[in-house]
Amino acid sequence: MSTFGSLYRVTTFGESHCKSVGAIIDGCPPGMRLTDADVQVQLRRRRPGQSALTTPRNEPDLVAIQSGTEQGITLGTPIGLMVQNTDHRPHDYSETDLYPRPSHADYTYLEKYDVKASSGGGRSSARETIGRVAAGAIAEKYLKEVYGIEIVAFVSGVGKVHVPRTLGGDEDEILTPDYMKLLNTVTRDDVDKNTIRCPHADSCEKMTELITSTAAKNDSIGGTVTCVIRGVPSGLGEPVFDKFEAKLAHAMLSIPATKAFEIGSGFQGTEATGSAHNDPFYAKPDGKLGTRSNWSGGVQGGITNGENIYFRIGFKPPATISKEQATSTYAGVPGTLAARGRHDPCVVPRAVPIVEAMAALVVMDMTLLQEARQAARARLATLNLPPGMGRAGVDQMIEEVKKDEAQ
Amino acid sequence: MSTFGSLYRVTTFGESHCKSVGAIIDGCPPGMRLTDADVQVQLRRRRPGQSALTTPRNEPDLVAIQSGTEQGITLGTPIGLMVQNTDHRPHDYSETDLYPRPSHADYTYLEKYDVKASSGGGRSSARETIGRVAAGAIAEKYLKEVYGIEIVAFVSGVGKVHVPRTLGGDEDEILTPDYMKLLNTVTRDDVDKNTIRCPHADSCEKMTELITSTAAKNDSIGGTVTCVIRGVPSGLGEPVFDKFEAKLAHAMLSIPATKAFEIGSGFQGTEATGSAHNDPFYAKPDGKLGTRSNWSGGVQGGITNGENIYFRIGFKPPATISKEQATSTYAGVPGTLAARGRHDPCVVPRAVPIVEAMAALVVMDMTLLQEARQAARARLATLNLPPGMGRAGVDQMIEEVKKDEAQ
Amino acid sequence: MSTFGSLYRVTTFGESHCKSVGAIIDGCPPGMRLTDADVQVQLRRRRPGQSALTTPRNEPDLVAIQSGTEQGITLGTPIGLMVQNTDHRPHDYSETDLYPRPSHADYTYLEKYDVKASSGGGRSSARETIGRVAAGAIAEKYLKEVYGIEIVAFVSGVGKVHVPRTLGGDEDEILTPDYMKLLNTVTRDDVDKNTIRCPHADSCEKMTELITSTAAKNDSIGGTVTCVIRGVPSGLGEPVFDKFEAKLAHAMLSIPATKAFEIGSGFQGTEATGSAHNDPFYAKPDGKLGTRSNWSGGVQGGITNGENIYFRIGFKPPATISKEQATSTYAGVPGTLAARGRHDPCVVPRAVPIVEAMAALVVMDMTLLQEARQAARARLATLNLPPGMGRAGVDQMIEEVKKDEAQ
Amino acid sequence: MSTFGSLYRVTTFGESHCKSVGAIIDGCPPGMRLTDADVQVQLRRRRPGQSALTTPRNEPDLVAIQSGTEQGITLGTPIGLMVQNTDHRPHDYSETDLYPRPSHADYTYLEKYDVKASSGGGRSSARETIGRVAAGAIAEKYLKEVYGIEIVAFVSGVGKVHVPRTLGGDEDEILTPDYMKLLNTVTRDDVDKNTIRCPHADSCEKMTELITSTAAKNDSIGGTVTCVIRGVPSGLGEPVFDKFEAKLAHAMLSIPATKAFEIGSGFQGTEATGSAHNDPFYAKPDGKLGTRSNWSGGVQGGITNGENIYFRIGFKPPATISKEQATSTYAGVPGTLAARGRHDPCVVPRAVPIVEAMAALVVMDMTLLQEARQAARARLATLNLPPGMGRAGVDQMIEEVKKDEAQ
Repeated sequence: MSTFGSLYRVTTFGESHCKSVGAIIDGCPPGMRLTDADVQVQLRRRRPGQSALTTPRNEPDLVAIQSGTEQGITLGTPIGLMVQNTDHRPHDYSETDLYPRPSHADYTYLEKYDVKASSGGGRSSARETIGRVAAGAIAEKYLKEVYGIEIVAFVSGVGKVHVPRTLGGDEDEILTPDYMKLLNTVTRDDVDKNTIRCPHADSCEKMTELITSTAAKNDSIGGTVTCVIRGVPSGLGEPVFDKFEAKLAHAMLSIPATKAFEIGSGFQGTEATGSAHNDPFYAKPDGKLGTRSNWSGGVQGGITNGENIYFRIGFKPPATISKEQATSTYAGVPGTLAARGRHDPCVVPRAVPIVEAMAALVVMDMTLLQEARQAARARLATLNLPPGMGRAGVDQMIEEVKKDEAQ
Repeated sequence: MSTFGSLYRVTTFGESHCKSVGAIIDGCPPGMRLTDADVQVQLRRRRPGQSALTTPRNEPDLVAIQSGTEQGITLGTPIGLMVQNTDHRPHDYSETDLYPRPSHADYTYLEKYDVKASSGGGRSSARETIGRVAAGAIAEKYLKEVYGIEIVAFVSGVGKVHVPRTLGGDEDEILTPDYMKLLNTVTRDDVDKNTIRCPHADSCEKMTELITSTAAKNDSIGGTVTCVIRGVPSGLGEPVFDKFEAKLAHAMLSIPATKAFEIGSGFQGTEATGSAHNDPFYAKPDGKLGTRSNWSGGVQGGITNGENIYFRIGFKPPATISKEQATSTYAGVPGTLAARGRHDPCVVPRAVPIVEAMAALVVMDMTLLQEARQAARARLATLNLPPGMGRAGVDQMIEEVKKDEAQ
Repeated sequence: MSTFGSLYRVTTFGESHCKSVGAIIDGCPPGMRLTDADVQVQLRRRRPGQSALTTPRNEPDLVAIQSGTEQGITLGTPIGLMVQNTDHRPHDYSETDLYPRPSHADYTYLEKYDVKASSGGGRSSARETIGRVAAGAIAEKYLKEVYGIEIVAFVSGVGKVHVPRTLGGDEDEILTPDYMKLLNTVTRDDVDKNTIRCPHADSCEKMTELITSTAAKNDSIGGTVTCVIRGVPSGLGEPVFDKFEAKLAHAMLSIPATKAFEIGSGFQGTEATGSAHNDPFYAKPDGKLGTRSNWSGGVQGGITNGENIYFRIGFKPPATISKEQATSTYAGVPGTLAARGRHDPCVVPRAVPIVEAMAALVVMDMTLLQEARQAARARLATLNLPPGMGRAGVDQMIEEVKKDEAQ
Repeated sequence: MSTFGSLYRVTTFGESHCKSVGAIIDGCPPGMRLTDADVQVQLRRRRPGQSALTTPRNEPDLVAIQSGTEQGITLGTPIGLMVQNTDHRPHDYSETDLYPRPSHADYTYLEKYDVKASSGGGRSSARETIGRVAAGAIAEKYLKEVYGIEIVAFVSGVGKVHVPRTLGGDEDEILTPDYMKLLNTVTRDDVDKNTIRCPHADSCEKMTELITSTAAKNDSIGGTVTCVIRGVPSGLGEPVFDKFEAKLAHAMLSIPATKAFEIGSGFQGTEATGSAHNDPFYAKPDGKLGTRSNWSGGVQGGITNGENIYFRIGFKPPATISKEQATSTYAGVPGTLAARGRHDPCVVPRAVPIVEAMAALVVMDMTLLQEARQAARARLATLNLPPGMGRAGVDQMIEEVKKDEAQ
């Protein structure tokens, strides 16, 4: 269905060629400052037509909050959001509209609904993501204000050009120190310095060249986005089916064109040994435990441990290309298809705010779920737990056990 | 929470050291033959103690269906399932139990619940997966009987040993023909021929050596599991948030120790161009459309297209190792930890039936959701759709448009 | 939260004084004709300002479908709906706005959200029901087209004036034959013949007088609405928590100002004996079983049996009255409150389409849930059930058992 | 489905004649003392065979907690619960088993599932309620410990014998002072003084006679249960679809044999005027607002206001009676049916703990939902709300507005 989340819940509507697209955000905490402008910031970043490298379809995408706020303050009631579709398309079909585009959603939508929208795979349109980005922007505002959480996504790969991540061969450095440093420090300003949204200068240049040359061939190219979430409290994530990484993977693979997800050391980490991969604990200045390395990506046993959460998402090359392709009609008659007009040769730059939005939705929902548990737990706090079941006294028990074992 | 699925829904209970573990399966279609034996088959495959390569903790894990069947036939009511925990552990702590094991769930569970179970991260235990495997076995039985669906998972990587997947350099062959052939043909019998559960003989031998040598060093090693689902009908998957691959990623990353997921060409495909990656359509003998290549992995726009669904999952090296690790106590006092006894040096062989189970749960749930839509749609079938909105007449429209455009 | 339903799901947004109110309807079957006009019909019936007996606040309440249809046909994707709020209220407070109105939601909303909307209990406003009525109208269209289902609600009580229902004393006639006949035959046209929406002429006249005299005293009066659903297939309703009547009660008590719900014989039936109350089976011409009486109200064991579903809902007198009331401020200072302007002296006439809408939402959702089960069950149909577990052969078994028992 | 609740969630399994019945309780706060005995108390109260007035089927119904606790303390993980079915029935059918019992679930279950359980309507069995009562007992323990909440249900009607509630005629006393006093003071000990569970001595005596005489005629009789919840915090209940009373109605009408629900003044209140029915506010000693009367039943606008919550539920007469009934077979052949053995002539005494359990489930779930909101709201608390949007300064505004209006 078109709803995501349990306590912070987003429901979206709209496809490419209808009147408007929008969303209802339910569960936003009451008493937070919120205006259209807070949402518009991220919508502007996902908007098409930002540069020669993205599709020129130019839409203002102005959001209008319909409900749920008064005098710029959230009421706790559902926030209705709407963005007009100004680029309506009339119902006249060109030849290419009548083919199921290869690797697009045209065919599968028809199989699913047994009705064909004029846009083919209507809801698989990138316009559907407007509602998510808006909902994510609101969640992010709360998370930033209350916890100082920072969510930064950036383009980490286009085709075979990757921001360097691994050295190869060295088991003790599953990912490179430079890469880990980038994750610790990268800001949205760094990311937005170029239209590719890659903060690694060398890679960025190569990516630009690759996208330009691919576009010139009327072709498209895939890529990856990496995202880091800094400042997330420990304890988020619901065992066992709704582990933090499971919800995150769910969220990310619900973004159009995604095919892969990895958190922390990811596939790279599967090649490592436990002794190299384990993250040893140490005491942080605030008294809580931290980990010296962070190959876990901030999540252990499905629950956040307070370290940075980082993950990488793979996007396939856009299916719609102007290059001719041999394929068939819905009825199975062989034919040749070449999409008209200009299309995004690479989606990853525009995917950056969508990834950030989906990340914010997951963190927000998990935060509220944990708030309920923590508050309920706190009201029982007077209970004296038996030795070994609480935090207190464990170190003393270790001493005692050591003595026993020494005898 | 501990529930997965919407119309076919599994809820599990149980941790390492409680009386029993089990599950309630709700939404199983009525009128299907089902006995304990149908479930036991897969439980036996996930059981510890199967070989020298896996943990020797030996448990019979005999399942007992409590409800929901009569005379070996499902009633459509919830199926209660229970497996006794015979390997209870008394509440005496050894030194190592009192440390938060690095990269294990001990610390994060305490952060989440503010109570420490004797097993540390209780529900993160592999024993919790018993309920899932049982639920998956029932789903699989239905899917096989009704649709002939086959789900086969196998070990595709241990450490740096991988079943060969890519050639490198050749854009037109994103994955190798041999690998694609393996996905088309591999059976569970092939997989179970060795305890590693790798059907690729060369790799299997190397994996065995690697696991043996790793165990000898009191260390552990990561790995990958690949799974293929054959025979899934087109039209499954719910736009937009519950895309087929999103639910699949959610399901897979809810399995303990997973860190990565990719479907179809996955991360490899992000390096390809659209013209190489797009899967062209052709007419299959049954009149439906098929695709000549299948880099999409059977899913387009979040909806199955009838082709094989295949995906790969990354498992980190097990956190519990006998090798000494420098870490700290809950209170932050530096210390040294070495787990006692023997532990799984590599989880992927035992993960195989769990991956299959989670895959079955996703397919089953998505199938029921689509059944509701299809049945509701069929009752409206007499409607004459306008040209271009149905299947009929599209090819004729193409001809007409071609003529118009030619003028 | 602001979402109702599982497979046919409605999410609403909007309060009294925001830009617009609306809803997203998810799960509408694809391929159904649908235009704004289909929805407008019921919105017009719930609109204020229809007569001297209801509030004069006059709003056009024109609905605009935003998405989910093309060329007047549903796509199966979410239907966004919006109705502008033309009667914005500026943020200037009169004295009475600053009191928590007794028995209104002002105080409890503040307790819940810790923020006070200018309208007091914002979402408790009757304007929120616009989204439900719209969603219900779409569901009803489907149910009527596909199953011929008829949903008719009417005013059955205002104050102490009731449409006669019981004789008193006669156990065999728990409700009167005239009342049961009314339920079998009443149409929406009958109901709309007068502004009270009571199809029983005698009662209607008395109700009109009572409302008029109550309004003259600046007071308000409660009432009841009865609803009948005819033509519902058997088998709807989900054991055990989501019994048909449980969902219906949930739906009805989510309507503002409701305090009571009864299905079938209701509270009256609690006074009866089993022998009088049981509904004996007989064979209907179509081969299915019917019941000779219908004190169950069409539901047995939480599942519909194919007979008419009827239920009655109690609405308290509107809380907002112009008569002076002694009460207190939020800070607890005693004070006197009299609402300004004119208010609905009785809500039941306008509640009629809302009750019908909520009934349609329940039937629609339950229908889709049962479609999934039935379709899944049908695919297993070749199974030969053991004797006594299927429909076939039961009558023969009765004969055999009779013989055995006779010996 | 067989799941109830969102954050405190119960899933039940089991029917009359299977191995065991049970439940999984998910979302119980960690760190609470809990043993089998805490649950057994209420199970004992719902058990059959307690007196001559209830069915003699005698089962120990001993509960065994399977998981989710250690050393008598909850871990926050799911609590598995099991009760053996010791009264298995073999699969031999008597004549009467082969008829669809009038007003029972036999026929509708067959319509729903297309498979017939030996017990007829398997899950509609009262044994399914064991899981709910257990789950409710755990919720109640938390609510009592943390908030001092008291939940007391009692039998308020059997047939035409009712605990006196209304005077008739007097609009200002919608319910009598004696009845309201009973609600304020009744304890579980008062209720359990007799097997009827009616704390009103006069009524109790008449009820006993009525049940005895009804049983002697091989017939059954309906009744009502009233329940009061004292000490519930204000602010519980989720606008708009999950109003407190809507969830309560849902919960109550999911209990077998229920047909009616009313909260506060209920149907009686629909006859009143607003001026009589409105509950005026006053300042309580703790500084919060209370209401002088409580016709609302503790809920306004779907949200609790801190006053007592009280409601009444109607139970139809049990369908299974030994008296002969003319009915038909599944195939529609007319026949005569008389149930064998002894049956409950009246269910309301045993329904008392089930009503309390369902009430506890609703309060618990709503409490956790509000905890999440309140905690999230509190973290934003530094915001200075504009005048009129917070609690502060409203009284001053009233003074100012009064002056303005006076000019």
